[in-house]
Parts: sequence; structure tokens; C-alpha cells
Amino acid sequence: MEKIVERGLLYDFYGELLTEHQRSIYEASAFQDMSLSEIAQDFSISRQGVHDTLKRCDKILTEYEEKLHLVEKFMKIQENARQINGILAEIKGTQERSEILAKCDSIQLLAKDMIEEL
Amino acid sequence: MEKIVERGLLYDFYGELLTEHQRSIYEASAFQDMSLSEIAQDFSISRQGVHDTLKRCDKILTEYEEKLHLVEKFMKIQENARQINGILAEIKGTQERSEILAKCDSIQLLAKDMIEEL
Repeated sequence: MEKIVERGLLYDFYGELLTEHQRSIYEASAFQDMSLSEIAQDFSISRQGVHDTLKRCDKILTEYEEKLHLVEKFMKIQENARQINGILAEIKGTQERSEILAKCDSIQLLAKDMIEEL
Repeated sequence: MEKIVERGLLYDFYGELLTEHQRSIYEASAFQDMSLSEIAQDFSISRQGVHDTLKRCDKILTEYEEKLHLVEKFMKIQENARQINGILAEIKGTQERSEILAKCDSIQLLAKDMIEEL
């Protein structure tokens, strides 16, 4: 499951760097959940050709991430945003003003960390 | 000035996709503020060669951004994080609990928007 999410993210970030042909095949496999045989038939290429294209796409996308680490950065930012939302939910249940302000300080650190991540 | 910032950001995001040779020349120009002649001498290439390399680097970096829009997305996230910090500063000067909670709602929207931006 995690691998599927990761492939989706890699494609979201770097998919535009694939050729149109690669993208069509990749999308048929990853998002339309078609089998190798089905894709082969649709694109009038061999099953092995589909397999090789998918493998090549994964390699290209992974290499971009190894160089740029943008999915990694994005996931860090997303995690911080989630934490901020968690703290905001806590604030709503907090009466004491000093406690609220302390929680705001935690949010500030998370927001600062997001900017520095970039 | 804005152009310099933009070039720096493009390089931060996509610089790793240039060759080592391109990176060295680009950094000498953009970050060490060396002239074309100085770089030409340092790298034992012609002044025209330096000029062409820099132009080529800018083109490559710009093309990546045109395809991926990641600098644009991350600038939007950074702007939201700055706004969150602004609201947090306001909260510190706010006494009324209901007002504080309203400001927290604004932060929540900004955090959600950040996640959706990606």
C-alpha cells in the first residue's frame, strides 16, 4: 500500500517529465488499475513492452526524487500542517489563555520549520 | 532584484539536474558574483562559452519550472506559513477568547490550503 502511495506522489511531482507515451501507460497501470495484458492490447504493444516502460518510468521518477528530494520535503510540510491542525483542535478545547498562547508557540515553530524545509 | 531571487530559487529546486560543470559555472556567476571574464579565466574557457553555459542553465531551470511549477507551489506554501505567523502574533495581543478562536480558524484554513496546494 505504501508503495502505491509513494508511486502516486512521485508521479504527481515529476510525471510531467515523462513523455506523453510513458505517461499514458503509467496512468493506465497506476490509476486505472489495468493489467499488463489490457494495456498491451490498448496500446498495440507487447506485454513485455508495457512491463519495460513501467519499469523505466519508475526508474526515472525515482531518480528525480533522489536528486531533488521534493516529495520528501512535501511530506514533511504536510506532516507539519497536520500537526498544526491537531494543535488548533486542542486550542478549541482549552480555556486558559496562557495555555492557548503556549500552543500558539508550538504552531509558530512548526510554521517556521516548514519555511526552512524549503 | 526579483530576477536574482527567482534564479536562486530555480537553482535551489532544480540545480541538481544540471551537470557538475554547469553547476560550477552557474554558482560562480550567481552566488560568487564573478564576472564572465573571471569565470572564463578560472575555467579556462572562452568568455562566450561562459555566457552560453549560463544562458543554457537558465533555460534548463526555467523549463523544469514550466513543467513542474514546484517553485510556484512552494512559494505559495511559504506565503501561507508567513501569514500563519502573522496571525499568531495577533493572537498574542488578543484578550477575547472568541476572537482568538476565530483567528485559529483562519490559521486552519491556511494550513488546509497548504496541503491542497501540493
